[in-house]
Amino acid sequence: MTSDREERLRISEIFGPTVQGEGRHIGEPTVFVRTGGCDYRCRWCDTLFAVLPEHRGEWAPMDPEEVLAEVDRLAGEPILVSLSGGNPALQPLGGLIAAGHERGHSFTLETQGSVAAAWFAALDSLTLSPKGPSSGHITRLAELEACLDAAGEGPETTFKVVVFDEADYGYARELAANYPGHPFYLQVGNPEPVGEPDPADLMARYRWLVERVTNDRWYAATVLPQLHVLAWGNQRGV
Amino acid sequence: MTSDREERLRISEIFGPTVQGEGRHIGEPTVFVRTGGCDYRCRWCDTLFAVLPEHRGEWAPMDPEEVLAEVDRLAGEPILVSLSGGNPALQPLGGLIAAGHERGHSFTLETQGSVAAAWFAALDSLTLSPKGPSSGHITRLAELEACLDAAGEGPETTFKVVVFDEADYGYARELAANYPGHPFYLQVGNPEPVGEPDPADLMARYRWLVERVTNDRWYAATVLPQLHVLAWGNQRGV
Repeated sequence: MTSDREERLRISEIFGPTVQGEGRHIGEPTVFVRTGGCDYRCRWCDTLFAVLPEHRGEWAPMDPEEVLAEVDRLAGEPILVSLSGGNPALQPLGGLIAAGHERGHSFTLETQGSVAAAWFAALDSLTLSPKGPSSGHITRLAELEACLDAAGEGPETTFKVVVFDEADYGYARELAANYPGHPFYLQVGNPEPVGEPDPADLMARYRWLVERVTNDRWYAATVLPQLHVLAWGNQRGV
Repeated sequence: MTSDREERLRISEIFGPTVQGEGRHIGEPTVFVRTGGCDYRCRWCDTLFAVLPEHRGEWAPMDPEEVLAEVDRLAGEPILVSLSGGNPALQPLGGLIAAGHERGHSFTLETQGSVAAAWFAALDSLTLSPKGPSSGHITRLAELEACLDAAGEGPETTFKVVVFDEADYGYARELAANYPGHPFYLQVGNPEPVGEPDPADLMARYRWLVERVTNDRWYAATVLPQLHVLAWGNQRGV
């Protein structure tokens, strides 16, 4: 039998230190650990290289110690590790989190909330980012609630919804009404996830979303752009 | 004798709801209450209309109830009120905060930390934003510490330093080393506070600052741009 500290993880990329560009930790220095594989196929996915099976050959099998050795090499000292994907909840990350905590790192994870894992409770911060209508997916609330239950009182759990249009906005409103106890982030969608993004268009979308939120007096929402897209475009590794 | 609830405040402008563009509350819906008058004259000041005595005629004397009536008219329900300036610490804001709390509002205030007020302790959030060398001012640490003492355990107190160059960055590093117990925000300076800002230049400055911070392994700092400048330029009232 292998313990969870020896289990192999499918890693698409490890990079940083850079800053987190989204949500609760926007602007905070972090190293990203991106896993490969996803149960979703969002229409506007900006990380297809970590989603589609044809990229599987690019995903390195690594054990937790190997991942942490790379995080340590990049960061040099304890840092916030952002676990992302793909859907990182598909990987057995409990051993990585436990060993990383021993080295002083903290862990935040983002997932769509379609798959719950017991080790969510060991995270420092969890972002549930269910996908609105524009993604092409329908949210299964039972799974989302299983994620909340798995996390329990362990991490600080926040919601984040990407908003492209009115339908996504309505979806976010309804979701927030269902789960009022958690900080709620709205993020402007990027319609050009490959090639060059258009900062002027992204800022126009941001202004629209701010106006939508303030017109509805939805003052518990936090409205943010993807800061890394504004700063670095769609470049990988930043 | 007038009580602090009747004391007149010098108000430059009240606007919103919009989102906070800076620091700890970035992206959060808020109404701004900007006071008139300042003990500083920062070289790169972006709100001279709330600083220079020649604008004094534009600053309305208002009592706390009048200010709150306008906040309520704009926001319609309880919201985060951002007290800004000028230097809002020069005004007797204790009565406004007490009466606003009764109506369900919360209050965040930003000041350079040159003048302490006993009512700091009643704030929900306090941003001390001492000015680096590029401002032309020298920080008096005794006054800054008086601000920390006045706030005590009342508000969540964070530091924010605007960074234009290497000298500002060094100043921020030293300040953070002196006050390690508080969240520390670095904000990219805007060299064009009047007229049209240059988003590409601002983002180049942001990338430089991120690189500076990560090269120094300063992982406790949060690095942010002025989001409202990216979204709305130097326009007032947003």
